[in-house]
Formats: sequence, C-alpha cells, structure tokens
Amino acid sequence: ELFVLTYGALVAQLCKDFEKDEDVNICLDRMGYSIGVRLIDDFLAHSAVKKCRSYSETADMIAQVAFKMYLGVTPSVSCSSPAGNEFSLILDKNPLVDFVEELPAERASLCYSNLLCGVIRGALEMVHLAAEVNFLQDRLKGDAVTEIRITFLRKPED
Amino acid sequence: ELFVLTYGALVAQLCKDFEKDEDVNICLDRMGYSIGVRLIDDFLAHSAVKKCRSYSETADMIAQVAFKMYLGVTPSVSCSSPAGNEFSLILDKNPLVDFVEELPAERASLCYSNLLCGVIRGALEMVHLAAEVNFLQDRLKGDAVTEIRITFLRKPED
Repeated sequence: ELFVLTYGALVAQLCKDFEKDEDVNICLDRMGYSIGVRLIDDFLAHSAVKKCRSYSETADMIAQVAFKMYLGVTPSVSCSSPAGNEFSLILDKNPLVDFVEELPAERASLCYSNLLCGVIRGALEMVHLAAEVNFLQDRLKGDAVTEIRITFLRKPED
Repeated sequence: ELFVLTYGALVAQLCKDFEKDEDVNICLDRMGYSIGVRLIDDFLAHSAVKKCRSYSETADMIAQVAFKMYLGVTPSVSCSSPAGNEFSLILDKNPLVDFVEELPAERASLCYSNLLCGVIRGALEMVHLAAEVNFLQDRLKGDAVTEIRITFLRKPED
C-alpha cells in the first residue's frame, strides 16, 4: 500500500505540473518505460523464466509471472487479433487504484495507471520485442473491466 | 523493485520541478505526511498490533513491524535522549536507494528518502503522537549508516 499511495503522489504531482491529461499520460508512459528498461533485469533474475517462443507465451508470462510478482494480481489474457500479435490483459482488480475513488471531472482523459504501459513496453524492448501498449478500458472511467492492450510490432516469424 | 524505481521517478520529477534541494525535501516530507495519514489504517488493520504504552514501544513497533511490512527491512532502534523521547532508527540497508549510485554533485543537500520521514510523522499523528522526524545520517551522503531520528514532542506522562 505504501507503493500504491506513493504512485498516487506521483500522479498528483504530474497533474500539478501538466495542465493537459494527455501530457500527464505521456509523462507516465515515459517514466514507466525507463523503469521497465531497468526492471527487466530484476524480473529475469527473480523469475527464472525460460525464453518465450511465441507472443502468446510472452503475454502469458507478463500476466501470470510479472503482474503477480510486482502487483500481486494475475490478469486474464486473450488474443485479440487473427494475426496473433495483439493481446488483452484483463484486470478485474487494479491495485494501483485502490485508494482512488474516481477521477475528478477535469481529469476525465487521464490514464491514471499509464506507468504500467510504459513499464511493459520498456521491459519488452530489452528482450528485443517492440510493442505498443495502452489502456483500452479502465474501470476508473466507468468501464466494466480494466484492459491493457499489447500489440507486438513485428510478425511472429521475424 | 517496481516501488523503488517508481519512487526514483517521483524524486526525479520533483528535482525537475524545484531548483532547491530544500524545496524537494519539503515536498517529499509533505507527500509522505499525506501518505502516512492514510497508511496508518492499513497498518493497524494488517499488523494486529496492540496499543503502545511508551515511546520506546512505539519506536520498536515502527522499526520491527512497520518497516518490515512496507520496506522489508528492520532498522535497529536506540534511544538517544535522557528524557526518553528521542529515538534513532539505524538502517544498514535502505531499499529505497537500491538503484541510486550516488547523489549528483548539484543535489548534495537532497534528502532522497525524505518521504519516509513524512510517512512516519503522518502515521504517528493519526494515533495522537506529535513527532519530528528527520534524517541525521544518510549513506547516500557518505555516512556510515542511514539514521532516522524520531523526536516525540510531548512528555511521556501526557
């Protein structure tokens, strides 16, 4: 909970620094990227995972090992493209928003947990997987679930 | 480690926002205070601790239960005033600085982990204990250990 509250302080500070939600979102994503780039070593050292052989395995690893390790929750994973390069992580519960009631009206476009997208993107890049990561749904914005979309940018054959 | 890196991102952002180290320190302390005020409920709910009957017991509780719970380390505690209202928490290892090599020369007065002081102060205030909390020594600044001083502001009899 100390982490969750500290994260809240970070988002609040960025909301002071940037008027536009979009700028806060970008900043959180960039910070997350820098974190992911460093966190991957810790993850590989502590998880003892083997090399993933497919995007599908990679997505499962992120959900079942990485999310479990760092956030204590396990999102469900579904593949959402015929090409097999898009995956959705569905979170019933997002621990980062434990202390957030709802977004203030003037912050309706804020992706509160956007740091996570950057972390995933940065960590994947360090294992030579280029990806786009973003929130498709967010319970904070009234959606039924929180959904993070990971789109791998090269074909599986590459 | 996700927490530690996120905390680093927060400190870095404040260093962008404020030119003076002193202003960053104050901001971290204030953020910590707001966090402590909320964290105390979580602590009391999860620790099942009993009411402390002395400052000494309170200091031990902070070191042995709270630090262990939220940071995974247990500082040693020593009383540092004849009046029995000043205590030092000595940390051989401060997990918050795991990824920090050293402070940049232009940030020599930064209390990198100052959030912790605010958290302790805020949490204590919620159980009706007024205290001053600050870093006396910091390994990041070349000291042999990291030392947090807690000074309770009323006499034990009160």
